Amino acid sequence: MGSVSAALDAVRRDVVHGAMVPLENSVEGAVPATLDELAVGEPLMITTEVLLPIAFSLLVRPGMQLADVKTIASHPHALPQVRRWLASNLSDAEWHAAASNADAARRVQEGQFDAALAGSFAAQHYQLVPLHEDIHDRAEAVTRFVLVSKFGRPPLPTGADRTTLVVFPRDTDRPGSLVSILQECSTRGVNLTRIESRPVGSKLGEYHFSIDFDGHVEDASVGEALMGLRRVCADVRFLGSYPRADGIARRVFSGTSEQDFANAACWLARLRQPLPDV
Amino acid sequence: MGSVSAALDAVRRDVVHGAMVPLENSVEGAVPATLDELAVGEPLMITTEVLLPIAFSLLVRPGMQLADVKTIASHPHALPQVRRWLASNLSDAEWHAAASNADAARRVQEGQFDAALAGSFAAQHYQLVPLHEDIHDRAEAVTRFVLVSKFGRPPLPTGADRTTLVVFPRDTDRPGSLVSILQECSTRGVNLTRIESRPVGSKLGEYHFSIDFDGHVEDASVGEALMGLRRVCADVRFLGSYPRADGIARRVFSGTSEQDFANAACWLARLRQPLPDV
Amino acid sequence: MGSVSAALDAVRRDVVHGAMVPLENSVEGAVPATLDELAVGEPLMITTEVLLPIAFSLLVRPGMQLADVKTIASHPHALPQVRRWLASNLSDAEWHAAASNADAARRVQEGQFDAALAGSFAAQHYQLVPLHEDIHDRAEAVTRFVLVSKFGRPPLPTGADRTTLVVFPRDTDRPGSLVSILQECSTRGVNLTRIESRPVGSKLGEYHFSIDFDGHVEDASVGEALMGLRRVCADVRFLGSYPRADGIARRVFSGTSEQDFANAACWLARLRQPLPDV
Amino acid sequence: MGSVSAALDAVRRDVVHGAMVPLENSVEGAVPATLDELAVGEPLMITTEVLLPIAFSLLVRPGMQLADVKTIASHPHALPQVRRWLASNLSDAEWHAAASNADAARRVQEGQFDAALAGSFAAQHYQLVPLHEDIHDRAEAVTRFVLVSKFGRPPLPTGADRTTLVVFPRDTDRPGSLVSILQECSTRGVNLTRIESRPVGSKLGEYHFSIDFDGHVEDASVGEALMGLRRVCADVRFLGSYPRADGIARRVFSGTSEQDFANAACWLARLRQPLPDV
Repeated sequence: MGSVSAALDAVRRDVVHGAMVPLENSVEGAVPATLDELAVGEPLMITTEVLLPIAFSLLVRPGMQLADVKTIASHPHALPQVRRWLASNLSDAEWHAAASNADAARRVQEGQFDAALAGSFAAQHYQLVPLHEDIHDRAEAVTRFVLVSKFGRPPLPTGADRTTLVVFPRDTDRPGSLVSILQECSTRGVNLTRIESRPVGSKLGEYHFSIDFDGHVEDASVGEALMGLRRVCADVRFLGSYPRADGIARRVFSGTSEQDFANAACWLARLRQPLPDV
Repeated sequence: MGSVSAALDAVRRDVVHGAMVPLENSVEGAVPATLDELAVGEPLMITTEVLLPIAFSLLVRPGMQLADVKTIASHPHALPQVRRWLASNLSDAEWHAAASNADAARRVQEGQFDAALAGSFAAQHYQLVPLHEDIHDRAEAVTRFVLVSKFGRPPLPTGADRTTLVVFPRDTDRPGSLVSILQECSTRGVNLTRIESRPVGSKLGEYHFSIDFDGHVEDASVGEALMGLRRVCADVRFLGSYPRADGIARRVFSGTSEQDFANAACWLARLRQPLPDV
Repeated sequence: MGSVSAALDAVRRDVVHGAMVPLENSVEGAVPATLDELAVGEPLMITTEVLLPIAFSLLVRPGMQLADVKTIASHPHALPQVRRWLASNLSDAEWHAAASNADAARRVQEGQFDAALAGSFAAQHYQLVPLHEDIHDRAEAVTRFVLVSKFGRPPLPTGADRTTLVVFPRDTDRPGSLVSILQECSTRGVNLTRIESRPVGSKLGEYHFSIDFDGHVEDASVGEALMGLRRVCADVRFLGSYPRADGIARRVFSGTSEQDFANAACWLARLRQPLPDV
Repeated sequence: MGSVSAALDAVRRDVVHGAMVPLENSVEGAVPATLDELAVGEPLMITTEVLLPIAFSLLVRPGMQLADVKTIASHPHALPQVRRWLASNLSDAEWHAAASNADAARRVQEGQFDAALAGSFAAQHYQLVPLHEDIHDRAEAVTRFVLVSKFGRPPLPTGADRTTLVVFPRDTDRPGSLVSILQECSTRGVNLTRIESRPVGSKLGEYHFSIDFDGHVEDASVGEALMGLRRVCADVRFLGSYPRADGIARRVFSGTSEQDFANAACWLARLRQPLPDV
């Protein structure tokens, strides 16, 4: 698909079962198009996540040598991630923007440019060859992709899960309104791992928040935090609970384990309905 | 009964069905003996509360006139509540301490003193007569009594209820430990109406807390707050949910009504178990 | 002096330079008379504190043996503190309430009772002798006394100080009002060590709070917390910063040391008034 | 300048006195390049902000008619903001990505494309003419630009100011770490107006935060909040206090006015250094 919007539309229209879209990357941060497409319209659900290293191949037409490369094309986002590599290896070549890396490859195939920075998987499609692979300035840089399906039942909890939400606050115009939203999580021991402000209705100064936290909707702690958010916010959109790609199990803090929640629930039930004397 | 301890022991030993004991009064504050007896030992339950105006009768032997009263006896607690009345009406009489107001009345009967400051109900028992009634320095001063029974099912909610607890914190030696306990209430919109520190195990610097808040254990907000306290505290002792004597209905703040809790619970249930497509 | 009130009045009227009054004890908790006398009227200041072990002497008329003691008198407060000793040593003797321990000693002198539980210092005054000393059920039980003078400059900080306040909240009728008061302390790393609700104006349901926390008014953290309380409360009465009797130094948590406060203040000053370029 | 980086570098190298760069826009949200360039490197300072409506001109070579436009170029960011206009007015034209809107205009001048979507100010520079102006899909959409200079003394407070920071937390891996950061603002009545997570060091899951709040570094409330952030965070970068473009005065909440802060500071000073008796 040509864009995140198109891919998610295809899910909504039942053209495909799922779309793998970028949510954030460790160089550029969140991907606004993905956040915004998920925040409105027919509800969708994230069912898994994948971390892909950020690395490019230098794709050329067969026979082309590195010394011959005078022009390079890529999506503008690729440039900050390979700038140092280019300075060391192709300092005289001229860079050109393309609409996407795939578009850059296509235009290399058509002869407009000498080389494209793109995923190596694009080589075959455009009948190009990779002159260099695994090009990046920062070895650990990754993009987090999420697999998005139609809204349904979340995958089962694994103990190392993440939950994604969109939270629409009631009133952000007083000190502490965001604090009180986040306390709905912290009070239940639920650790926020990402928060983004997104402008609402194309006005500056009004935001909704895209939030990730550790844990699964089936967890008692997460369930209670979700209900708390639902009560104090104008709206909450649940975008799924799914296994973390890094498999890091949730840290549990004193008083907020699943066992603690279960014990407290039993205790409350007995206060409300004491056991009869025998 | 001669003391709060004796009265509560009688409840625990099934000698009586209930004991009406003072919990706090508006001049002296909390009644430590009552708080401490309820905090340990076999669990008891408060099932109702009564506010009694603080007023004394001046009890004398039949035939005694005001001009004859040269000595007056009472429990020392009574004195600050009638000091001005005594100054205006019996400025020359000499006050003597008794172990209780009942003891003062007994000693008037025995002829040790001329008059006792006590409840008018004591007159008949000690064959005395009230020379003056409704004696007090502050018209609005009251004592809050609670009716204590064996632990059981709380009375039904009325919409104007109070809940009483004893909370044993896990660690009070860091800034914010009491804050985090109280937030378990405030996050759910539960309003604290009274809090007392009580020393634990006869060491200073370690406390448990005697707490009252608005609402009933059957309320969703109160139930969730109780579970939260149970999770983060070393122990919580529930002492009952019962109608407020003043009948003042609970103020409900945005996002914390019973309806808000119910809506959030339904929403969560649907996230966990979506409706099947038809 | 016959009472806490009388002792503090004597300080206010310049009759004495200071009064040593009980603030709390580890069996009975806070001493309401002291808290309330300090909370209103001409401001006073606590300049030091002392912890005195709770222990009684068994005072008898000269010549009396333990085997002869059939009746014992004391203030009712003494009884819970010696109950086990009595059960082991005088299980057949009968206990009687007196208005105070001094009153019990007087009545032993007069021959009404065989023995009094009182401080050993009372023996000489009433011509009694101590048959047993250092009587108590819990070895570690103590009363905390404070030395109160006229309002003035607090003693210098020692690194192991305590600060005592009375806080009059603006509005206690909403969830979180007490939380927001306590957060003024916890945000600055100031650890609350005692809190008592005291009824205001002889009405139940409206309280001010008597508070102790670790640290000294000269500490940056305590100073900022005090200013915060002053801003958000209807009134704050400062009752002094003084060395802790137990000499336990203040625990300092990350980001709230005096050095942290000083560094932050320097940083802010430089933001407001940058160094000129040289 | 060809990019935000280049513009800010020019400020740092004293080539220009200031750079006007986009910080966020109401359709796309924050501009990562600007946030990240300001967060590291030699400190810079925002001295004012401007809100510019988002609108494009369709620039063509002189003589070109709308019916002749077969290809259009722009930066990819422009596309979502004019998509509907293009669908209505140029549904058959083919869109091409350019590195920037200025680059698109240059390439129209060179004849590579028929039309560029760019600011109308670009027309003269590239010898183009605007065929249509004020092109946008949402009338109220704006971009917030900030004027960035070398670090120095902030402009004077106006009563309607904004402060921009970058906050590097100490530990984000526990529930409530972000809450405690935000409480440094809310406790002082300082209202957060924008917060963005930005990935740190090209790893996902570790973030710093780009923050705007109401008020000026010279305000007592803002100063105290800044010091609090500085104490509890690993680092804080102050990016300036400057007049809000919309001129909306800061809302002041109970207990957090400048007068409240001043009163509290005087009170504290008198506690520490009481007035001598006269």
